[in-house]
Order: sequence, then structure tokens, then C-alpha cells
Amino acid sequence: MNTARVLIDCKDKKGLVYKISKVFYENDLNIVSNQEFVDKESKHFFMRSVVEGDFQKETLKSQLTLALGDGANIKVIEPAKKNIVIMATKEPHALGDILIRYIDGELDANILAVIANRENLKGLVERFNIPFIYINADNISREEHEKKILEELKKYKIDYIVLAKYMRILTPNFVKEYEGQIINIHHSFLPAFIGANPYKQAYERGVKIIGATAHFVTDDLDEGPIIAQDVIPVNHRFSWRDMQKAGRDVEKIVLARALKLVLEDRVFVFNNKTVVF
Amino acid sequence: MNTARVLIDCKDKKGLVYKISKVFYENDLNIVSNQEFVDKESKHFFMRSVVEGDFQKETLKSQLTLALGDGANIKVIEPAKKNIVIMATKEPHALGDILIRYIDGELDANILAVIANRENLKGLVERFNIPFIYINADNISREEHEKKILEELKKYKIDYIVLAKYMRILTPNFVKEYEGQIINIHHSFLPAFIGANPYKQAYERGVKIIGATAHFVTDDLDEGPIIAQDVIPVNHRFSWRDMQKAGRDVEKIVLARALKLVLEDRVFVFNNKTVVF
Amino acid sequence: MNTARVLIDCKDKKGLVYKISKVFYENDLNIVSNQEFVDKESKHFFMRSVVEGDFQKETLKSQLTLALGDGANIKVIEPAKKNIVIMATKEPHALGDILIRYIDGELDANILAVIANRENLKGLVERFNIPFIYINADNISREEHEKKILEELKKYKIDYIVLAKYMRILTPNFVKEYEGQIINIHHSFLPAFIGANPYKQAYERGVKIIGATAHFVTDDLDEGPIIAQDVIPVNHRFSWRDMQKAGRDVEKIVLARALKLVLEDRVFVFNNKTVVF
Amino acid sequence: MNTARVLIDCKDKKGLVYKISKVFYENDLNIVSNQEFVDKESKHFFMRSVVEGDFQKETLKSQLTLALGDGANIKVIEPAKKNIVIMATKEPHALGDILIRYIDGELDANILAVIANRENLKGLVERFNIPFIYINADNISREEHEKKILEELKKYKIDYIVLAKYMRILTPNFVKEYEGQIINIHHSFLPAFIGANPYKQAYERGVKIIGATAHFVTDDLDEGPIIAQDVIPVNHRFSWRDMQKAGRDVEKIVLARALKLVLEDRVFVFNNKTVVF
Repeated sequence: MNTARVLIDCKDKKGLVYKISKVFYENDLNIVSNQEFVDKESKHFFMRSVVEGDFQKETLKSQLTLALGDGANIKVIEPAKKNIVIMATKEPHALGDILIRYIDGELDANILAVIANRENLKGLVERFNIPFIYINADNISREEHEKKILEELKKYKIDYIVLAKYMRILTPNFVKEYEGQIINIHHSFLPAFIGANPYKQAYERGVKIIGATAHFVTDDLDEGPIIAQDVIPVNHRFSWRDMQKAGRDVEKIVLARALKLVLEDRVFVFNNKTVVF
Repeated sequence: MNTARVLIDCKDKKGLVYKISKVFYENDLNIVSNQEFVDKESKHFFMRSVVEGDFQKETLKSQLTLALGDGANIKVIEPAKKNIVIMATKEPHALGDILIRYIDGELDANILAVIANRENLKGLVERFNIPFIYINADNISREEHEKKILEELKKYKIDYIVLAKYMRILTPNFVKEYEGQIINIHHSFLPAFIGANPYKQAYERGVKIIGATAHFVTDDLDEGPIIAQDVIPVNHRFSWRDMQKAGRDVEKIVLARALKLVLEDRVFVFNNKTVVF
Repeated sequence: MNTARVLIDCKDKKGLVYKISKVFYENDLNIVSNQEFVDKESKHFFMRSVVEGDFQKETLKSQLTLALGDGANIKVIEPAKKNIVIMATKEPHALGDILIRYIDGELDANILAVIANRENLKGLVERFNIPFIYINADNISREEHEKKILEELKKYKIDYIVLAKYMRILTPNFVKEYEGQIINIHHSFLPAFIGANPYKQAYERGVKIIGATAHFVTDDLDEGPIIAQDVIPVNHRFSWRDMQKAGRDVEKIVLARALKLVLEDRVFVFNNKTVVF
Repeated sequence: MNTARVLIDCKDKKGLVYKISKVFYENDLNIVSNQEFVDKESKHFFMRSVVEGDFQKETLKSQLTLALGDGANIKVIEPAKKNIVIMATKEPHALGDILIRYIDGELDANILAVIANRENLKGLVERFNIPFIYINADNISREEHEKKILEELKKYKIDYIVLAKYMRILTPNFVKEYEGQIINIHHSFLPAFIGANPYKQAYERGVKIIGATAHFVTDDLDEGPIIAQDVIPVNHRFSWRDMQKAGRDVEKIVLARALKLVLEDRVFVFNNKTVVF
């Protein structure tokens, strides 16, 4: 008895659900859950099914490919722990939240290592018996620093890299190496504030709400496909440092929520946006 | 070119999606949207599809019945305005909110009449050219009062009755006449407070959150299947009357949200709970 | 027995609360409620007290001025209905919500008139026995249009102008005439989207949250001091028109909340931000 | 230069703010922040001020007592780390969240020890160099178990006991020993569900919102004064175990928020409710 998550997306056309469910039916599979969506603007079809039964992953994939023709993206994924590496700088809230969930068995993941450009989180990480790799960024170029990180990353077979308040900008070169595999969390405001110290700008504008956005990293800084967002209320009694502290709670919860969605293969990326089932 | 909302629920078994989508495929229908859910506890299957194409509603329903066998609840609904009657007492917030949405064309409904046991809302309702029926409850029994209401209701072909802060309890007899067709809104608290003046009890307990629940009415007072809920924060500065006032905003928004879901045929009721697509 | 709202703001220094409460004490006033705040960055003091007793407003103000010296902004406001004019274009949701609250006695205001640059809201407004003034903007310059509006506005003694989805930009000249008296509502996003059709941009980015901001209008378009904000969740199933519709609920609630705060004299403006008690 | 948090509550009467601020003024103190509230129902006055200056705590307290007369509760508290003990059972989410905040320096507290009736959290706690005291409850009476816990607690000078998902009911005897010093977190629902497995009951009712309540522990089980509450949305796709998991995030955030408020001396308890500044 196998279980698989089947993820399909392709140009929308008539009969897709029929053709896919026919393959499931002929394999005598049980559909545990099933969600579809058609993006009307782009006329694109998305489907995520969890199926159970006596089947071979590769055979099932071939049959689905045959049924749908070329041009369909088809993944048949066995539910299994994914391998992740966390990158951080110095703040423990987002990293620590992931670590506690990790030992609670809440995350379907192996944390292979934590890489940081500061040393202060070493104690925390090693308490959880996870390798802590300190790669100092002082006095070297961004490219040199990333080269060192990439050397470490290459030692692992990585599914996802989680930026848990990693405070440095990644170069397009780095992003290309792990395209669609890097998840970031950043603060968000209504309205948005661009440039240095956005919390101070938000404070000066007197915003009443602050938030956080978890997204895939693309070349376009903080502009990748959004996975999850949330907000909390603030008021005039909050200094900008208070806002920053209050923001930590929403940052860590939103990052964890996004990570969980990704680990459960619930997120499609298409045209710089996500479909989340 | 027809459009229909197809709602199906039945005992879960293998091949349901296949059999249903086969009927759609063989009728050359376009699936505009499609959502399924299987309740694991009760092993019950729910599906809502919006389909487009050249078909006859009755024929489609027959074909689906043939495909699924007895025991499946199948509805093929043409998207059309539903007929509703609103019942109210004296507060204008929930009623008024529906009226404004009504003239904005936001509700897919005809408001046939407003029935109230007080007279003060007459002016408001008649401004919208909707019949206002005042049925005084003074000095008569609950049964006599309901009998008069039922006489008025029988004049109309009604899809749903919306209790927009109708402050009287309905008898089982009344509820049976419009089973599954009556939507109510009531305040909700964490924790709940039972008995007289729950706002005062909530105030005395110092709750930090108050809410509202929209639900179908069953014999079990305020215990019918929940359609929508929401909350707002309060604090010690709120008197119980302030809480009551603040609660109005969440009551009206939640009732309107529930009404919209029902008018779009998005709500299944099963075992005293709802599946909302 | 009089009641007054006393609003004071001035440069922070020692003894302010003492000096103010001494005046209240010597007048044998009862302090019904009292809130203070010191903005640490700007070292500015804010205080709002509601006092009851046997006093003359002008005398009390003089005594407070004497106690605090020059440079203190002191207002002694009798709680009374404020006079407001609403400006709208064609959408009824924000306007209608205010009208329903108005007849419910929830707003401490007289609505003197509704001015619109489209004619379709006339029926709605006149149902509430409020003058509807239609001022067509077609084929005339912005300045000419505003001149006509100002002519109408000059007929009234206005405390506040509420832009209930008035879809035209006001010129600095207009804003100057009613500085600090104009309240606007606009949609808000995380991140923000600037330019044409922000809902479409938000849709294309796949945002998971949309919101609304109520603010005072300044010359800087949509950048005036924020009074209130709120958000609602959305997801990939929302088209940009769905987002726009969903946004209406949060727009109307946030505008009404801001209006209520302003009518109760709870909002200080200082340095392009608000202190809201 | 000293700093103190001054907390005063007493029967409301005229001149309280004047008399208190006069003492501050005559001591040449700077009022850093100041909040007051009068509960209209109980006619009780609450005030929390943070003052800076050159003063003796005991002298200031005497002067305030003299100014206000008997019957006023006056506390002059030096801002300092409070001593807390955490009690837990087996779930790591609430405990772990506190531990991460602790090493981040976010909590103004010393965690003296963690006491648990299960052993599985030992590894987690000891990673943070905090004593873990395992007190098995098997085969002994509730009184015997609590006696052992009290013996351990008596070794410390404790300000607050935090029940971080401690799953046993405390006896009135235990509660009396630490009256007003025990903080608990429990799940909350709209409507509430009483008895065994409330998550299962909430699931069966199909609730759309679940929440958490942090409160002081009194003899009346889960009915003590509420400090903080929050909620998250759920839907029909959540099994009751999913609800329970989702509830963890809101439980830990609400407990941490309540703990922070208590550590900053922001919470008054009066008549089974709180005033939170």
C-alpha cells in the first residue's frame, strides 16, 4: 500500500479531471484528498491529489503523462522528510521557532545544518545537535562569501533552504543555484516602506498594522511569489523598536506556516504567484 | 450555452470523481470550478462543480444519478436569484447592511419582504421599496404569533429566511416548515456565556475578544450548523453596551458573508456541520 | 452639570499632568476618563480627558492656558453632534454603511449633504432625506469642478468632510480650505502597489491579505496621517474583481471606525501621524 | 536616577489624579508613561505610571499612602527580572517558545526551574541550562503529587508560576499558596465546549474559529481573570487533530503575550477580571 502526492499543472482544457481520475480509477487508487484550480486569466490548470493504493510511482507518472500529453508538469511525490538547511544571521526567534517545531516532530524535514554569518546562534543550534556552520562575511566580497556558503551547501542534498532572518541579500548567481528552493521571511507594511529601516518609516507614518510575508526568493529582491502572510495590530504607543519586536511573533509564525505548506507539497508557483492547496 | 452548479454528496467510495467527471466529459462540458472534500470521520464525499456547456439540467442530473447509483444527493442548480424574506425585530444594522448590498447588486437574491415584530424599521425598509410586514407579538402566544407569520410567508415561494437580529425564539413547528432554509446570526464569546444578557456576562468576565456566528436554525437553539464566524478585539475600556455596539459590526459582516455563501450554493450541511466551498 | 472633552498637546515637560489635574480639582470636576501619551521621539505630550461638573468652557480653557503657558494647544469641546458632508462617486457600500449607522443613531453627527460627481447614488441618499448634490465633472477642469463643489460646501458650517469612495484627486487648494477636516478611505496592500489598478497588481503578485486605510487628507496623495486600518485574508481563488469586492467590507468598516473616532474627538494629529485615544 | 512602576487602585473619587501627580511633581519626577482607567460599574480607579527621578521607593510609597488615605492599593515596583517557574506536562510548543524568548533576552525574568509530570521534556529544558524537575504523578493521589511539587517550589522565591500546557488540575490548596501568581493557557472556542476532548466537540460542531485564553488561575477551573486571548480561522478540512495542532500556535503566542504583560506589571486583577495597561 503506497501513498503519493500527485501534483499536476498544465494549460487548461476540457477533460483534464476526467483523464486524471480515470488513471487513478484504473489503478484502483483511493483519492484521499483532491483539490483543483483553474486560473482564469492565464487559463492554467492546477491539481493536487493524495492517492493511496498498490502502485509504482514511475508507472503512475508515465500513465498520467500518456493521458495528458506533453506540456503537463506532473510530479508523483512520496511523502517523506525533506532535507533543509537554514540560513540565519543573529536573531533567534524565527530559527528557534523552527527548532522547537523540529523536535516536536511537527516538521516533515531533516535539518541538515544551520549556516550563519554571525556566531552568536551557535550555542542555540548545537543544543539541538544540529551542525552550526559559521561563515564570516567580514572583509570579503559578497561573491566570496557566497562561494564559501555554496561550498558547504554542495555537501548536502538539499530540498529547501530556509532564510530565517538571514540579513544579507543573495546574488542572482546564488539564487539560480537553488531556484524555487529558497524561502524567505520579511516584514510587510501597509503601505510599504522601501529603503533603510522600514520599521522607523512605518513608525513615523503611524501605521496601525504591521505584518510579515513568506515568499520564494527570486532575483527580484523581496518580490518573489508569496506563500503566506499575516499581520498584527500596533498603535501610537509602539516605538519603532517595539514594532520590530512585535513583528517577530508574526514573522516566525508566518515562516513556519509557509515552510509547512512547502514541506507538504501544497504550493504551486506560476507566473510569480502561488497556488496554495 | 448553459451554466449550472452541480452539488453532489454521498457515501465515499472509489471512482466517484472519475464517474462524475466522465459524465461532464461526455457532455463536452467545461468545468469552471471544482471542489471536493471527503470527511474522514463519516466517510462522506462532497463535490461542488460549476459547469458550462450545451446541456439540459434534467438530463445531466439523470446521467449523474445513473453513474453514481442510489443514495447520492445530486443537485443541478441554475445560477439565478433566490427568493428571500428577512425577519427582524428593531435593530437596523444587520438588516440595513443587507439592504445596501441589495441595491448594490451584490446579493444574488430578490428580497420579497421584511417581517418584523416591532414597527420602527418600517421607514428604513420602505425606502428600499420592499414590503414591510409588521406582526405584533404583544398579548398573543408564541404559536399564534408564528401562525400569523406563517400565513404571510405562505404567500411567497421562499428559498431562504434570513433572521437579521430577529430576537424571538422560533418553535420546532416553525423551524420544520423551513428546515435548512433559515439563517440566523448570534453573538459568540470565548468562553461562551449562556442565559440572560451574555454581553454583560462577557463584560464581567473581562473577555478580550467578542464574535458572531451565522448558522442554520435547527430545533436546538443557536446550535445549528455553523456557516461563518468572525471576531473583534475588545478590552477593559468597553462597557457591556460598548461590547454590544462593537459586536454589531462583526454580526452584520458575518451574516452577509454567510448569506452570500448560501446564495451561491456553496454550503453543504451534513451531521450538524457544514462543508463550505 | 456640564461635560467637556479636554484635548491638550504641548512640548513635554515635568508637571503637566499635575498642573492640568490641579485645574480640574480646583474646579471640583469629575474626571470621567483620562488618557495621556508622550511621544518619546518628538518629546511631545498628548492628553484627552472627559470631565463633568459645574464649569464654563471658556473659563476652564483660560485656566488651563494660564497653568500651562503659551505653546500648549488646548481644546475644551462640548460633546455635540458634528456637521459633516459626505463626498462620493458611484459606489454605495461606504456611503450606505454611514447612512445606516446614521439612522441608527450610532454617529454623533448631522449629515448636511452628500455631494457626488455621478448621479446614480441620488436615489439612495434621498431615501434618507438628505440633500444629494450632483456636480458633474465632465468636460470641465479639475479646478472648475472643485470651484463648484466649494461653492456648495460654503453654504454649510462643516466640521468634517468624509470621502466615502470619492474617486477623484483633490487639489492642494481644496485641501487647504478644509485642512485636517477631510477623511478618506483607500485600499491598502502588503506590499503596496502604486499606479493604475492596484487590485490587479495585487492579484498578479498573489497577495494573501488585502486591507484598507482611513486617513486625513493632505497634499500628499493618500499619504496623510493614518486613523485606522484593517485587513482581510484572500487567496488564489480571488480574481482581482473578487478582491475588490471583498475589499469593500473592510473599507466601509474602517472608514466608519475612523469617523467615529474623529466624531468623539479621540484623534490628535502631529507630525503626519495620529495619536488615537 | 531611579525608575519605578507605580500601580495604584482604589475606590474612585474626585482628585485622585491630582493628588498622585502632585506627589510626583513635588518629588521632581519625570512621568515616562501614565495610564488610568475608572471602571464605571464598580466605581474603581486604576493607574499605572512609570516614573524616573531621584527618589526612595519606600518614601514615595509613604507619600502616596498619605495623599490617598487608607484603602488604596499602592505598589512602587523597581523594574527588575522576576523569578518564574514553569510547569509542563509533555508538549514542547508553549514551553519551547518561552525558552527561545528567554535566551533572546525578550523576557524580563529568570527561569528558576521547569517542573513536569512527564519526563520527555527533560532534554529540551536542560539544553537551556535550566533545572528540570520530574515529579511523577503515577500511583499517587493528587494531594501527594502536589505536596512533592510544593516542596520543590518552596526552595525558590517565586514571583510567577507559568503553566505551559500543564495538563493536570490544581487543587484549591495549591492555588491558595500562589494566589494571583499562577498563569495558565487553555484552548477556547466559540461557542465553548465543556467536558472531554473539546477539540473533538468543536470539530463535530464544525466551528470556523478556534482560540486560546491566558488567565490567572483561581479555584474555579479555567474561569480565572483573562489576561490575553486570540484566535485563528479553521475550516471543514481540519480534523480535530489538525485543529489541536493549529491551536498550538495561538496558545504559545497568547501565553507569551500574557507573560510579558505580567512581567511588566501591566495587569491589575479586580473582581475576577483584568485591567491591562
